[in-house]
Amino acid sequence: MLAETLAAIRPADPRAIADARAYQDRLTKPRGSLGALEEVAVRLSGAAGATPPPIPEPAALAIFAADHGVHARNVTPWPQEVTVQMVANFLAGGAVANAFAKQVGATVTVVDIGVAADLPDAPGLVKRKIGYGTDDLSVGPAMTVDQAVQALEAGISVARELVAGGARCLITGDMGIANTTASAALISAFTGRDPVEVTGRGTGIDDETHARKVEVIREALRVNGVNSVMTLPTDALRALAAVGGFEHAALVGFILGGAAARVPLILDGVIAGAAALVAAALDPAALDHCVAGHRSAEVGHTAALEHLGLRPLVDLELRLGEGTGGLLAYPIVCAAVRVMHEVATFDSAGVTEKPV
Amino acid sequence: MLAETLAAIRPADPRAIADARAYQDRLTKPRGSLGALEEVAVRLSGAAGATPPPIPEPAALAIFAADHGVHARNVTPWPQEVTVQMVANFLAGGAVANAFAKQVGATVTVVDIGVAADLPDAPGLVKRKIGYGTDDLSVGPAMTVDQAVQALEAGISVARELVAGGARCLITGDMGIANTTASAALISAFTGRDPVEVTGRGTGIDDETHARKVEVIREALRVNGVNSVMTLPTDALRALAAVGGFEHAALVGFILGGAAARVPLILDGVIAGAAALVAAALDPAALDHCVAGHRSAEVGHTAALEHLGLRPLVDLELRLGEGTGGLLAYPIVCAAVRVMHEVATFDSAGVTEKPV
Repeated sequence: MLAETLAAIRPADPRAIADARAYQDRLTKPRGSLGALEEVAVRLSGAAGATPPPIPEPAALAIFAADHGVHARNVTPWPQEVTVQMVANFLAGGAVANAFAKQVGATVTVVDIGVAADLPDAPGLVKRKIGYGTDDLSVGPAMTVDQAVQALEAGISVARELVAGGARCLITGDMGIANTTASAALISAFTGRDPVEVTGRGTGIDDETHARKVEVIREALRVNGVNSVMTLPTDALRALAAVGGFEHAALVGFILGGAAARVPLILDGVIAGAAALVAAALDPAALDHCVAGHRSAEVGHTAALEHLGLRPLVDLELRLGEGTGGLLAYPIVCAAVRVMHEVATFDSAGVTEKPV
Repeated sequence: MLAETLAAIRPADPRAIADARAYQDRLTKPRGSLGALEEVAVRLSGAAGATPPPIPEPAALAIFAADHGVHARNVTPWPQEVTVQMVANFLAGGAVANAFAKQVGATVTVVDIGVAADLPDAPGLVKRKIGYGTDDLSVGPAMTVDQAVQALEAGISVARELVAGGARCLITGDMGIANTTASAALISAFTGRDPVEVTGRGTGIDDETHARKVEVIREALRVNGVNSVMTLPTDALRALAAVGGFEHAALVGFILGGAAARVPLILDGVIAGAAALVAAALDPAALDHCVAGHRSAEVGHTAALEHLGLRPLVDLELRLGEGTGGLLAYPIVCAAVRVMHEVATFDSAGVTEKPV
């Protein structure tokens, strides 16, 4: 399924990009006056291979939830059971992601990809558990390559099912206590930056915990032999398995699955940024289908975005995860595309253009 | 009507602000993890005098359109008739503001506050013309103080009527070829900064035009004797009349009218920023009811926001006006408030809180 998905991904269409740029300049607004939104519209034109691209409505948020063996190293003050408690909160509609999703008209799907507890069936819950949390990445691989591929293929399946159900935009979400540790390890491995440069405060940790977190990440990269930039797809999968989480692996698949279906993806924060680095190592063309929803307060996220060459749309110091930053960006992405469908041209509106 | 409106404006309620801050910390998210959105929710709690504040739905955009005598000084390459052409475009639904308003579910009202042409009646058009464009601010006052007050009271009326019609959020919009020149003059007068520091490229001008624009603003401030920081409300009205536009004056009233009705206002870009400086000089409490929608690419806007102490929500290099930046911010503002209505607390959701 992974190979088939990679084979289906098409890079941005240069002709659609050129058409979109030219069309932007004919609309009744000064050239360039929509700033970064013009680039969003052009990017989605390239991804769709059409100008204008479809308005990406409706949207579906998928929250991939999992636990992390590295939690035992005290990288966070939050107890591990908060992961399963927050899954219950999502399913009851009581989390911030639910409120934001309601605001922007997105559906919410929660995927148990590796929570360290058995979950009862519930509407909105997809059970694709690979294990009861990963192993401790600081003493060996967090998961086997086989498990990583299973999680990744689960992510592809979720993307396919949401698109089959009518979604025309996919938004990445995550939940997993300790998952900023795995994210920082992946970001260090894929960008070549030192762990201290890409390790943030997660949900809010003190100096001592932060120093321990950096050391744990350093150990993880050394023990697993992934402390250098990944160049081959096989290296990428091995690094993902070694220092990632089940939700990272699933998000890689979700991104690839959305790209293969030519449905735009809005990336949330640092967890999605780490997953996007892996997806880009597997196929750089997958990125052509992605928009960076926001910039997280986590320092590693900025490093990931720079490496990916993505500009975030929302930059409000959010550091919650769940997909919240992606959800906030969603109406902005729709607005950028809607302009190409509904705004008059200078000719059609009889508006005088600025003399060149 | 101005005096009555000023008397009705209440400053932020410190108790509601304290309650809102405390409530934010009980919601199922790490403390502070919603970044700037927590401040938006707290601010609107203070403005409404209630925790949680009402979700500010539905929203109404008002686009105040006017022409400017200073256009004769060649401060822009766009012909003046583009103002009236764009009014027609708004009324036909073909402008970017219309597309964005549709995306976020806001109504659009266009107000002729001083377009240099007679406009036919049309649905969505409110006729409150004060004159056929202002006089040239570089040779004398752009308007009389009496005209400024008339325009301001028209803005109050429009705010009142939109609120009476059900709007629970007001978004500022503007259209007027050459209105960034008047905006820069106002911003210089109210912040005390030199014209060269606050004069931008507007819709896109070359170096020669930019240099002329700065000189014209310098002349305007000197000729009208308003080249110093305004301290008294009477100074503020005189400066508004001397170097503002009819749409600036109307926006001042619109802000005051919304604040008096305790309905939150989302400020668009540099034109609204200039008007907000005047409104704050008339009553600083009016600002408690305002949220800065975005940061425009116009340099003067950043100066205005700093002076006002407002943090913009969207920062994507837009420089279009019309209310486009305010419209993009609107779902973000709603999302921030919705959190206070719909998100569970640690207690209610049975989520374990981080040990202190």
